[in-house]
Amino acid sequence: MRRPITFAVEKQLPDSLARAGIIQTPHGPIKTPAFIAVATKATAKGLQSLQFKDLGIQALIANAYHLYLTPGEKIVEETGGVGKFMAWEGPTMTDSGGFQVFSLGVGFGKQVSKFSKEDVPRQAAVAVYDEDIATEHGKLAIVDDEGVTFTSHHDGTLHRFTPERSIEIQHALGADIIFAFDEFVQPTAPIEEQRESMERTHRWAARSLKAHRQNIAKNDSQGIYGIVQGGRYEELRIESAKTLAEMDFDGYGIGGSFSKEDILGILDKVNRELPREKPRHLLGIGEPEDIFIGTAAGIDTFDCVIPTRNGRNGTVFTAKGKMSMERAELARDFSPIDAACNCIVCRTYTRAYIHHLFRAKEMLGLVLASMHNMAFLTSLTEKVRLSILDGTFENYRAEFLSAYKR
Amino acid sequence: MRRPITFAVEKQLPDSLARAGIIQTPHGPIKTPAFIAVATKATAKGLQSLQFKDLGIQALIANAYHLYLTPGEKIVEETGGVGKFMAWEGPTMTDSGGFQVFSLGVGFGKQVSKFSKEDVPRQAAVAVYDEDIATEHGKLAIVDDEGVTFTSHHDGTLHRFTPERSIEIQHALGADIIFAFDEFVQPTAPIEEQRESMERTHRWAARSLKAHRQNIAKNDSQGIYGIVQGGRYEELRIESAKTLAEMDFDGYGIGGSFSKEDILGILDKVNRELPREKPRHLLGIGEPEDIFIGTAAGIDTFDCVIPTRNGRNGTVFTAKGKMSMERAELARDFSPIDAACNCIVCRTYTRAYIHHLFRAKEMLGLVLASMHNMAFLTSLTEKVRLSILDGTFENYRAEFLSAYKR
Repeated sequence: MRRPITFAVEKQLPDSLARAGIIQTPHGPIKTPAFIAVATKATAKGLQSLQFKDLGIQALIANAYHLYLTPGEKIVEETGGVGKFMAWEGPTMTDSGGFQVFSLGVGFGKQVSKFSKEDVPRQAAVAVYDEDIATEHGKLAIVDDEGVTFTSHHDGTLHRFTPERSIEIQHALGADIIFAFDEFVQPTAPIEEQRESMERTHRWAARSLKAHRQNIAKNDSQGIYGIVQGGRYEELRIESAKTLAEMDFDGYGIGGSFSKEDILGILDKVNRELPREKPRHLLGIGEPEDIFIGTAAGIDTFDCVIPTRNGRNGTVFTAKGKMSMERAELARDFSPIDAACNCIVCRTYTRAYIHHLFRAKEMLGLVLASMHNMAFLTSLTEKVRLSILDGTFENYRAEFLSAYKR
Repeated sequence: MRRPITFAVEKQLPDSLARAGIIQTPHGPIKTPAFIAVATKATAKGLQSLQFKDLGIQALIANAYHLYLTPGEKIVEETGGVGKFMAWEGPTMTDSGGFQVFSLGVGFGKQVSKFSKEDVPRQAAVAVYDEDIATEHGKLAIVDDEGVTFTSHHDGTLHRFTPERSIEIQHALGADIIFAFDEFVQPTAPIEEQRESMERTHRWAARSLKAHRQNIAKNDSQGIYGIVQGGRYEELRIESAKTLAEMDFDGYGIGGSFSKEDILGILDKVNRELPREKPRHLLGIGEPEDIFIGTAAGIDTFDCVIPTRNGRNGTVFTAKGKMSMERAELARDFSPIDAACNCIVCRTYTRAYIHHLFRAKEMLGLVLASMHNMAFLTSLTEKVRLSILDGTFENYRAEFLSAYKR
């Protein structure tokens, strides 16, 4: 069998885990390192898929939990999959929904925003804190070894995901790369509970993989990634990576932890356990500085809501650091958002104009800020890639970070 | 002196006032009849100026009142005018702000939305009904023969517009076509009050014209339109048209009334009084059926917020009439919004996808619906133009309206 997802390392740096490569998918290549656009509900928050290529987007990641609830995976399947549904012809991924079932279901409380891999919609907060629903069902998500029963954050209806069901949904959604269904436990839980959760995640990974490989048609057209868990515990993370490395996944995702620093610090140790010839995806982390840390630790692809979330808040990325578009001194600043940026927003519009749009509370302001931020991160990741190919990665990293004020 | 705005009638139908022509402006031609995009605050509500040409937009109309308050006309002037400010190279107009000073200042109450030529921002309602502000200033707009003193709907600060000041502001904003400063009286007021207001509007028109012609530099690069008023009274409207026709304007705007039916019914009589060789703009009216009525009555250009306002509400135009994108049966409808439409939205996206975006409350839904609606109206108006040129206007009108359910 020829695998639908293949990966070729073009260049491996000798002094770090950093590498450049190409992931081949049924919908074209992803040149790595790559920043993957988040399109949770089959839309990248105000960005038109018509313009994805202009923004340097190579691939996107949608979410099985959200698309299962709205519009339902069957409707997406009828259109020919999540890419066709949203009029995007390039590579696609779907996250399994494991994270969302727990983060939107169990009700971690406000801490949830700290780990959010996806945009937690406003309704989520309502559901989590809606006492009527909480009382009716006791808990919003109930885990057993078979799977998890959860309450929709939309309407309080009861649903059940198992690894097999998640894979079935992801088969219907039809992305090139799907993810195993993982459990996500409250990161403040004691290590024993973390271990138990991790071990369940491993059993679910094996079941996800089996469910995928058994469906010959889908197995031929979609690849599957396992997800390394283990919270903030180095020993668990390494054990998780070792266990998953022995399973026949097409690539690996690294799941989130309590704070991104916890996971970034041990990323290289995790990646050393994973097979070199398989691509590695860091889930939900992707500020500019994280791209360098992740790449140096052997990550090939990143996804993060930060470009569009920051854009909606009026925060933009520049070579000198983040900047609020609402700053009063921008009113007469007729330069582009970032003089070093060549994106369609920076080639077209001034800071003064975008500042005006934010002051006037005009929707176009957040659209343009989101477009620029997306282009900034895809372009940064491409420059990281080129610096690996020509052997100047460490120079580029030092140069970028010396100018970029966090 | 060669006028910056010239108009050539290409074809005049023999059996109606309908005509096709070309308005030449310093920023290129407007082929008429034309639908002008409303960009009140220098943005067409979520549409990127980058994509205006794709949407068939030939020209836009911004608003002096709104841009005077935010960001201030001086900032727009520094960037090279409202077109440059918003990165649009084609023809531009600015409305004088007369309507907004009154509608956002005096506090007509909820009826205001009936005549709104522009999007009345949500803050307006707050200002109008904010008792603290109302008490402080007694009234929100105070008219004297010289001009009008009004309260900003943003922050309650006091401002004063005179015809001369409105023209000065519009000179700074730098649009190709500016409008005389007009008074707008509560349309339910008795006829005596309407007459008084109209006569003041005529005096202000003469002052606006003088202020414009005295500024040689601007007079060379910007044209000025007078505005016909007179409320819903045919005798006043005809008198207004006759009076303004004798003044040396480069074109004429027809102002709004109590209901658009009032003005549409007497539009041909008004236009017969206006000089044939000057272009005529119908302010703030532009549903599909109005385009036919207005064109038959001799209107050359239209503007209306309806494409973007309807888009934001999820209402789209189709050849069969208006449709709500939230209708449940669209969930599995994989056809474009309008099968007869060739716009970039209809060439790219399905009803099912846009329906999903509205159900999921995703911003992209209203962007795409607004884009389609704008393209629908510019395309309709272009087809009206072509039907005049080839002599099939009445056939096209009958054909369109028989399929289009209001």
